[in-house]
Amino acid sequence: MCQRLIIDSVSEFPSIVGHFPCQVHWGDCDPAGIIFYPTYFRWMDAATWALMGSVGYGPKRMREQHLAMPLVAADCQFVAPAQHGDRCEVRSRITRFGGASFVVAHDIVRDDGTTLAQGSEKRVWGRYASGPGTPLKGEHIPEEVRALFRAR
Amino acid sequence: MCQRLIIDSVSEFPSIVGHFPCQVHWGDCDPAGIIFYPTYFRWMDAATWALMGSVGYGPKRMREQHLAMPLVAADCQFVAPAQHGDRCEVRSRITRFGGASFVVAHDIVRDDGTTLAQGSEKRVWGRYASGPGTPLKGEHIPEEVRALFRAR
Amino acid sequence: MCQRLIIDSVSEFPSIVGHFPCQVHWGDCDPAGIIFYPTYFRWMDAATWALMGSVGYGPKRMREQHLAMPLVAADCQFVAPAQHGDRCEVRSRITRFGGASFVVAHDIVRDDGTTLAQGSEKRVWGRYASGPGTPLKGEHIPEEVRALFRAR
Amino acid sequence: MCQRLIIDSVSEFPSIVGHFPCQVHWGDCDPAGIIFYPTYFRWMDAATWALMGSVGYGPKRMREQHLAMPLVAADCQFVAPAQHGDRCEVRSRITRFGGASFVVAHDIVRDDGTTLAQGSEKRVWGRYASGPGTPLKGEHIPEEVRALFRAR
Repeated sequence: MCQRLIIDSVSEFPSIVGHFPCQVHWGDCDPAGIIFYPTYFRWMDAATWALMGSVGYGPKRMREQHLAMPLVAADCQFVAPAQHGDRCEVRSRITRFGGASFVVAHDIVRDDGTTLAQGSEKRVWGRYASGPGTPLKGEHIPEEVRALFRAR
Repeated sequence: MCQRLIIDSVSEFPSIVGHFPCQVHWGDCDPAGIIFYPTYFRWMDAATWALMGSVGYGPKRMREQHLAMPLVAADCQFVAPAQHGDRCEVRSRITRFGGASFVVAHDIVRDDGTTLAQGSEKRVWGRYASGPGTPLKGEHIPEEVRALFRAR
Repeated sequence: MCQRLIIDSVSEFPSIVGHFPCQVHWGDCDPAGIIFYPTYFRWMDAATWALMGSVGYGPKRMREQHLAMPLVAADCQFVAPAQHGDRCEVRSRITRFGGASFVVAHDIVRDDGTTLAQGSEKRVWGRYASGPGTPLKGEHIPEEVRALFRAR
Repeated sequence: MCQRLIIDSVSEFPSIVGHFPCQVHWGDCDPAGIIFYPTYFRWMDAATWALMGSVGYGPKRMREQHLAMPLVAADCQFVAPAQHGDRCEVRSRITRFGGASFVVAHDIVRDDGTTLAQGSEKRVWGRYASGPGTPLKGEHIPEEVRALFRAR
């Protein structure tokens, strides 16, 4: 288990912050009456897509340009249990841009201000040879793309 | 992103290894035609339950004794993409026992021997005050329980 | 396959209509690039909970009063395919109250007005003997509860 | 709610029966401690794919030939509750072949012989213009395909 070392580094990218609203549904919970943990990763994935959409890289454009962002790694610390009905928000920011990869950090916060979980995803910026299902190749992330995520 | 540091440590617990069979279903995949990553965490959770069951702590006993094993953290490295129809196995072992917590490491391997993913879960050994839905308290993991997971 | 016969009947209950917003996420879609159909049932379940919440029977109250509403049957017609990024709404109404059961009809409509799917759920109104996990018994639905769903 | 009228008709197709093993995992259950109902639909989908695979139309072939089988409708009756740990089997058969559509009936049976649920799916037999993500067109189901499902 790690402490999201990269995120604490001094060189963290000065990112905009996305806000993805979500709610704990009945079927997201387990017999213990609390959220089933893969739900957090489903939220983190959706939050990353929303962050991309917020800078102009929404699902339609990603599809049309044959872009994808497959995962290299993901982690999450579960800080406080969430219950059915809890309203939350995933706060997402890009903490690092590598050559063809980037790291997204996510804080999952309940509407009473409680942090429920903190996670991160390392993803590759890639393009399909010719549409979904065909081979995917990582690409250098263009400076124009990086600039879109820079906080002003 | 971390490299499962704890797992590489010299003091790794000498654990039995569980084998949990699984398969990539149509609905486990995304529009890229590969596995949607939270699926790996669903498998890891089920594999941990199967590992517990293999030493006598199956769902029925856990329920009756009001035992639970909530998550503290989880991570996964995605090594190779999995496709619809792939048959896999989650190989699980306990790499560390703390006072009231333990770490389970999982290797997800396709039937052609390819490692698809490697993850770990840190969990607490706990008991509900009086059944699911009531407060849960961590408990010292009994030596008898630890012994069940020791490889011979 | 049926045509939701009950719903077309003349004796349909004059119900309020709930509006549950939802969105097609990346992980809700399959390799065909369209929504994986069990997602609609996940939405219908969440929409029914939201409808209950809108009349004062939210998750917290249901939990505290040991109430539940297990399913007897569910069906859905898939009218038009949904894609990643589509913003939708589930419009839910109660079409029938039986003794201890009720039927909820759901229209899933995209924000451009297109109906994507139409489904229904038949549920029982029940109470746990003593909290989740303990036996559940159907109960006659009180007239006060029915009244809450009557459109004015 | 309907009683799978088509299935009870005299003209039911004399189908082979597929057997798809499955198990109720922790994360498949809800705070009531029983299976979350969309899980049955996930199983039915996987069972239909397994049935197809059993006659030579596995995921790889379906992908290579750009074949798909999108849903028109699905329904399920929930007969008995399933709990975490229950081992089950989905027994699937084709009850009707239309021109470009077919109906699959599924019985979900626990290993003690108890029927947990009974459902059906109406699907179209179709082909993508040029791979996943491109438009899909229904096709007349070839007689050779129908013959593969005929019980001997």
